[in-house]
Amino acid sequence: MNETIKTLLSRRSIRKYKKDPIPDEILAQILEAGTYAPTGMNKQSPIILAVTNTSVRNQLAQLNAQVLGQDKDPFYGAPVVLAVLADKSVSTYLYDGSLVMGNLMNAAASLGIGSCYIFRAREVFEMEEGKELLRSLGITGSYEGIGFCILGYQDEEREASKRKENYIYFIQ
Amino acid sequence: MNETIKTLLSRRSIRKYKKDPIPDEILAQILEAGTYAPTGMNKQSPIILAVTNTSVRNQLAQLNAQVLGQDKDPFYGAPVVLAVLADKSVSTYLYDGSLVMGNLMNAAASLGIGSCYIFRAREVFEMEEGKELLRSLGITGSYEGIGFCILGYQDEEREASKRKENYIYFIQ
Repeated sequence: MNETIKTLLSRRSIRKYKKDPIPDEILAQILEAGTYAPTGMNKQSPIILAVTNTSVRNQLAQLNAQVLGQDKDPFYGAPVVLAVLADKSVSTYLYDGSLVMGNLMNAAASLGIGSCYIFRAREVFEMEEGKELLRSLGITGSYEGIGFCILGYQDEEREASKRKENYIYFIQ
Repeated sequence: MNETIKTLLSRRSIRKYKKDPIPDEILAQILEAGTYAPTGMNKQSPIILAVTNTSVRNQLAQLNAQVLGQDKDPFYGAPVVLAVLADKSVSTYLYDGSLVMGNLMNAAASLGIGSCYIFRAREVFEMEEGKELLRSLGITGSYEGIGFCILGYQDEEREASKRKENYIYFIQ
């Protein structure tokens, strides 16, 4: 089995993190891999907000928790959050943004960094505070939140869950 | 740079294929990697139809071409087609199915197999012929087509296109 297949099979969704930051050169590799996900007609509809700033990270966590209607950190203590959004004016935006999320998580796993896909990005960037964050970055246009890829050194071991029966149907 | 990162950066969308079939053990690895994509709440909402049967492959191509309103093969001569669908009753189905597509394409690339994401799967499985194919496999429930992952040995070399400016925004 080659290294890529091993990574794809062994990546887990991590829900407990150490506080250690991610070195810049590691984060740069994860981000670059994200930008190389395929997109419909190569329109590259997504963008990635790479949040290492603690107060912005905490603000996004708080907004996400608000959508969820809970108090605890929905980012599970992960020090880094990558918010993926995509341009709704491109018909494939939702697929495009999801493919970026996948590349980010797989790249992270290959580099020994834990990750998890956290939802409610759409709702967060529909909130006034989310919109204000985009404006403060000079981002205009109709971007919809696709997901938060939380990142950090994992502080738990996770086994693979069983794959469901009938995942694959062969037509031979 | 590790092997996984190399795969993620060097995977290209391939639009010219040799006719050679894909060995079963290679296809099995690609499919398994697909099933290990993360899904919302681990509900594993997607399914994969692994089509190596030529007449079903051609039927899907013809239906896809019909949606597109053209005559030529929208699957670019690729001998194998993996149709990913996902259960619409799961709120994250569209993201889930896209993540499966991403894993399939990346796994293929790591094994020297070319791939391309072909859209219009939703429309194909909304057509009577598409529904009939699902019924013939005993698939019930509200499955929506997410994408066709076409596969084969590539018969062209492709360079990476330039990534757009402002793909990544750092908030440090």
